[in-house]
Amino acid sequence: MTRQGSVRAESGPITISVDAMGGDRGPGAIIAGMGRAARDNPDIHFLVHGAAAKLEPLVAKRRDLSGRCKVRDAEGVVTMDAKPSHAMRNGKGTSMWSAIEAVRDGEAQVCVSCGNTGALMAMSMVRLRKIPGINRPAIACLWPSRNSGGFNVMLDVGADIRADAEDLLQYALMGTSYARVGLGLPRPRIGLLNVGTEEHKGRAELKLAHDMIAAASETAQFDFVGYVEGGDIPSNRVDVIITDGFTGNVALKTGEGTAKLIRELLREAFNHTILSRFAALLAITSLRRLAKRIDPRQVNGGVFLGLNGTVVKSHGSADATGIAAAIKLAAELGQADFPERIAARVASLSDTGQGGRTSGQVYGTHK
Amino acid sequence: MTRQGSVRAESGPITISVDAMGGDRGPGAIIAGMGRAARDNPDIHFLVHGAAAKLEPLVAKRRDLSGRCKVRDAEGVVTMDAKPSHAMRNGKGTSMWSAIEAVRDGEAQVCVSCGNTGALMAMSMVRLRKIPGINRPAIACLWPSRNSGGFNVMLDVGADIRADAEDLLQYALMGTSYARVGLGLPRPRIGLLNVGTEEHKGRAELKLAHDMIAAASETAQFDFVGYVEGGDIPSNRVDVIITDGFTGNVALKTGEGTAKLIRELLREAFNHTILSRFAALLAITSLRRLAKRIDPRQVNGGVFLGLNGTVVKSHGSADATGIAAAIKLAAELGQADFPERIAARVASLSDTGQGGRTSGQVYGTHK
Repeated sequence: MTRQGSVRAESGPITISVDAMGGDRGPGAIIAGMGRAARDNPDIHFLVHGAAAKLEPLVAKRRDLSGRCKVRDAEGVVTMDAKPSHAMRNGKGTSMWSAIEAVRDGEAQVCVSCGNTGALMAMSMVRLRKIPGINRPAIACLWPSRNSGGFNVMLDVGADIRADAEDLLQYALMGTSYARVGLGLPRPRIGLLNVGTEEHKGRAELKLAHDMIAAASETAQFDFVGYVEGGDIPSNRVDVIITDGFTGNVALKTGEGTAKLIRELLREAFNHTILSRFAALLAITSLRRLAKRIDPRQVNGGVFLGLNGTVVKSHGSADATGIAAAIKLAAELGQADFPERIAARVASLSDTGQGGRTSGQVYGTHK
Repeated sequence: MTRQGSVRAESGPITISVDAMGGDRGPGAIIAGMGRAARDNPDIHFLVHGAAAKLEPLVAKRRDLSGRCKVRDAEGVVTMDAKPSHAMRNGKGTSMWSAIEAVRDGEAQVCVSCGNTGALMAMSMVRLRKIPGINRPAIACLWPSRNSGGFNVMLDVGADIRADAEDLLQYALMGTSYARVGLGLPRPRIGLLNVGTEEHKGRAELKLAHDMIAAASETAQFDFVGYVEGGDIPSNRVDVIITDGFTGNVALKTGEGTAKLIRELLREAFNHTILSRFAALLAITSLRRLAKRIDPRQVNGGVFLGLNGTVVKSHGSADATGIAAAIKLAAELGQADFPERIAARVASLSDTGQGGRTSGQVYGTHK
């Protein structure tokens, strides 16, 4: 199932900068994913970064990429276990650095990488810089849900392990922009992740954030549904779930792990007897439909929000299908001038005195 | 699937104190669950608390409870939305209070309630008191997993939203005792929940807790596998997952919500065509096996650890199957003198200078 209702109004040629050397499956899977995305969307062009000697034959093999893909040689590779600080200091000349640089220089509108998340975020922060008024960038992910579009958005899922009340408000603004562009929701429902809905529960910064987000909802054009719990993440109660990067990362990986366990058990159940194997054959179309609906590859693509330029982080283990999904998402965001939209939303709230760190004290004095 | 390998050596008659007035389905479901548990385990006796006029006819109807169940009249009921502080001040005379009191007075070994979690924890803290050396009690839950026994343990899943390094160490000790008694694992594998395994990730208290738990593993007879991530919770990498109550509660509810979504989608997939409905009929045994494996009712029962007396919190929405599972777990813990085991483990670590708040500074000075 693909994401429905995406805003595609701003279509037009778009260049996507791809780091071809990250990822566990090597450049072959990445170039194959690029080929699929190119076939589905004729507006997409690529600037791909990595060892040219390896990449050029792979690109040449894909008819769909013919005339639409430039290779930029970059010998260095950021390893998956590199520390972000080390990668940042020594990253110049790597494919990751080069891919981000192309967005910075305006050669491409969006960057896609399967590489080391921490390094990618650190480099993106330094090279693209934060949007004025944003304190902490965030990573947003899509989550299979009961919503009409089939997906919810959650942020932050791991850009930063901390978030204060002001950061959570900014996540709400950025999540609103993302849901409008990525999910086609004109007025998304925003929820703040907590352990309960009772007043006595939850941390102090969450209570403050609750009031700040509620106060901003009218100006920033979202509906605030208040606190939501872990069980609401895949529900139709909410479109965008706001949380700090520690909690969000644990929740994301817990959900993925649970889905994986159930998929494995389902496969075992259908392999258990001859009768159940026959039943699986009969139900193959239904089972495939279900598998696609909860296929993590379809929601592959964490988006870095809050930077002057959009960066899409694909799973390190993504295959061609996963890479193609991430590129498709990147193209939608790039065609919608996404960072400008976030900047405008943050600025509009600051203008009304409802946002910005300087006015934070206002919220401390009233409930 | 039932939990395998449980330690049942200490069998003998046991009295379980049941709060019959909590829960969304009323006392009928609770008494029915008691009947089932009684049928399966001839050692169990009950002391059940609530409105006698309602309970006595329900008990009389169940042959399995004949001669094994006393009713204690308690008119008051703690509502599901009551604040813990209010319930504690005004709780005397409620079925919940009476059920806890029976454990305090030694009339019963374990208390089971489907009522308001916050109120149950607050009352249990005040009436049963903490085990000497324990700073924060915790709630432990079972989680369907890839382990040979089919379940992992996670704590804390919501007793307290905070936990410092010392608390996390105590959770490791309590979780070890629980895994030995509840899962029959002589030397459980303990993991500390974090967002990554790299040194630079995670919060400061987690780094400290990591070193403290590692230092205690030999004395306290567990294997420390270090940091684990959300995806490891249902895995066979670890038996006991240690985290603070905020993160644990979000993870638990996220896992439950994900499993629920997949169950619903699976049902829809098999209802989609006549062929798939026929296939579901053929595969009914396999599908039921799977459903039972991930049935939240089978893992129904959060256990309060760290108190002088064991309290099992069942889901508010639990039906007779869920209640019976919670009572079965309660009986196993009660028959094993569970709080004494935890007390002994905590004391043994204090004796060697590896535990106890007074020696906490030791850990601050070295890595």
